[in-house]
Amino acid sequence: MPTTNRQWLLANRPTGLIAPDVLQLTESPLPVISDGQALAKVKYLSIDPTMRVWMTDFPQYMPPVQIGEVMRAFGLAEIVESRHPNFKKGDKVSGLTGLQEYCILTGDEKRAFQKLPSIPFLSDTNFLNLLGINGLTAYFGLLEVGKPQSGETLVVSAAAGATGSIVGQLGKIHGCRVVGIAGTDEKCKWIKDDLGFDAAINYKHPDWKAQLTAATPKGVDINFENVGGEIMQAVLDRMNLHGRVVLCGLISGYTKHDPGLASFGQLIIKRLRVEGFLIMDYIPRFMDAGQKLGMWKMTGKLKDRQTIVKGLEKAPEAINMLFRGENIGKLIVEL
Amino acid sequence: MPTTNRQWLLANRPTGLIAPDVLQLTESPLPVISDGQALAKVKYLSIDPTMRVWMTDFPQYMPPVQIGEVMRAFGLAEIVESRHPNFKKGDKVSGLTGLQEYCILTGDEKRAFQKLPSIPFLSDTNFLNLLGINGLTAYFGLLEVGKPQSGETLVVSAAAGATGSIVGQLGKIHGCRVVGIAGTDEKCKWIKDDLGFDAAINYKHPDWKAQLTAATPKGVDINFENVGGEIMQAVLDRMNLHGRVVLCGLISGYTKHDPGLASFGQLIIKRLRVEGFLIMDYIPRFMDAGQKLGMWKMTGKLKDRQTIVKGLEKAPEAINMLFRGENIGKLIVEL
Repeated sequence: MPTTNRQWLLANRPTGLIAPDVLQLTESPLPVISDGQALAKVKYLSIDPTMRVWMTDFPQYMPPVQIGEVMRAFGLAEIVESRHPNFKKGDKVSGLTGLQEYCILTGDEKRAFQKLPSIPFLSDTNFLNLLGINGLTAYFGLLEVGKPQSGETLVVSAAAGATGSIVGQLGKIHGCRVVGIAGTDEKCKWIKDDLGFDAAINYKHPDWKAQLTAATPKGVDINFENVGGEIMQAVLDRMNLHGRVVLCGLISGYTKHDPGLASFGQLIIKRLRVEGFLIMDYIPRFMDAGQKLGMWKMTGKLKDRQTIVKGLEKAPEAINMLFRGENIGKLIVEL
Repeated sequence: MPTTNRQWLLANRPTGLIAPDVLQLTESPLPVISDGQALAKVKYLSIDPTMRVWMTDFPQYMPPVQIGEVMRAFGLAEIVESRHPNFKKGDKVSGLTGLQEYCILTGDEKRAFQKLPSIPFLSDTNFLNLLGINGLTAYFGLLEVGKPQSGETLVVSAAAGATGSIVGQLGKIHGCRVVGIAGTDEKCKWIKDDLGFDAAINYKHPDWKAQLTAATPKGVDINFENVGGEIMQAVLDRMNLHGRVVLCGLISGYTKHDPGLASFGQLIIKRLRVEGFLIMDYIPRFMDAGQKLGMWKMTGKLKDRQTIVKGLEKAPEAINMLFRGENIGKLIVEL
């Protein structure tokens, strides 16, 4: 067993993408655990747009990461040593492991880890994707905030991303016409041919707004928004009366200034509901949702896909891949 | 009885305020009514921010007024001649009279007029204010969209306007701490001393944002928004988790470009619900709401106030008064 722990510390706050001076790779002695603690080896790190938000120093839903701290990240880890009554060697857990090779579990509330069940048809990475934050975000955001009705039209942005790809499939399960917006033809092909979206639009094509109009002949009832900016504006222009916008993410504004919405008045004219939403409000219902998602996965109604980057040293570049749209499905760093 | 009808026609679309060439005062022969019609003399015209929206040629909740048409307006009129089974001479009606001296009632659905009951404690102008569009807008917007809970903090913008002043009083009736934002010290004094708001803030004072912070020690749960722009932004910055924004009007953007919201991401971080709303979705429930509003008026729990401008020829200037904030309570043109 190694005696050191490699960790990415936040060294400087980013202004745009993650420049080389933002995160610093350090090596420290492997921590020694006390009674009530367990040591876990990180196997997979979940790379999420919200990490860029955590790096920025403004009031947000969790405290921003402080300079000198291990960069916060969600991950999957395996217990290698335990003096904690709830964990034994070999147990797999998911939670806020941080961008590092080893993490300590104390079992306190704020850094809660979830022990993963062993289910034959699920791989480890499913627990960071369909059965993890992304699946749960798609489930509660679409069903509780969007409230889809059969026959309605749902538009999803970042539709080939981890969350968007599940949102669209859940829309199909609930009888919606589903249109996805993504940034490459390959992504569009995947969500249409493999995931069963009714239409997929590459927003880098010059006539994408006309394509969006053609793909939504009855207008748009629900916009599941992961991007913001120009893409959100174009979808808002297609919204029907009493439409709902599930505001899940605004990735277009995380690394650069977002000009905001030009047609805010449309919200009144069309009586739209725009609702921001964060998955942590639904923690008490995770188990229920997980069971439903697992059942759909098992019966082939939900698929998920990963883009795997190997090596802890690649983590900063992996974060940038998100903002350049270089992942299909869930972006994961494998250690 | 006169033989002519003076009418304000839309001659040119405005770019900012109503310039002298936008509306044209014309005189035409008094219309002769046929079977199934009634002729009514307009007594009071309701001057509303939405009139500026109707003058602009973009898709909206009603067709924009066309060039050459009589300018659309809500008003109160008295039947002077009738060949319509539902109306007799002397009946008072409210509805879309248009900016003119006489209007014809045909009884068809699209230009429906409401016959006004004669109630001792109500004056004619109450039916254009507390018992009219403004009272109903305040009622449904606050109660159905805002969903106030006792002990919550409600902030209302354009708080000394016709709608805002009623919203604040309804907030008090429902147990909220109510803070109003208005543009003169006189308006602030009225809503605080006469209407019972807990605090009133003049946004033209240099330190008004600090005053807003001081007046909302527990943050803001409901923002009833009539203004938009910088005022809405400042209130959003004070919103609590799961706050609600009732988007009723955006008057700051009707006559000039509104820069939009800078902190749209706050909607996610604070899980806010921003909901656009138009009173016409609640038409089937007007009678119920009117009875409640009338009861509160009769028992002294709701007050309304008018700013009266005399003479049809003053109508265009009256519209501009709205955008310059020169009215307290409901702005009405008396013919």
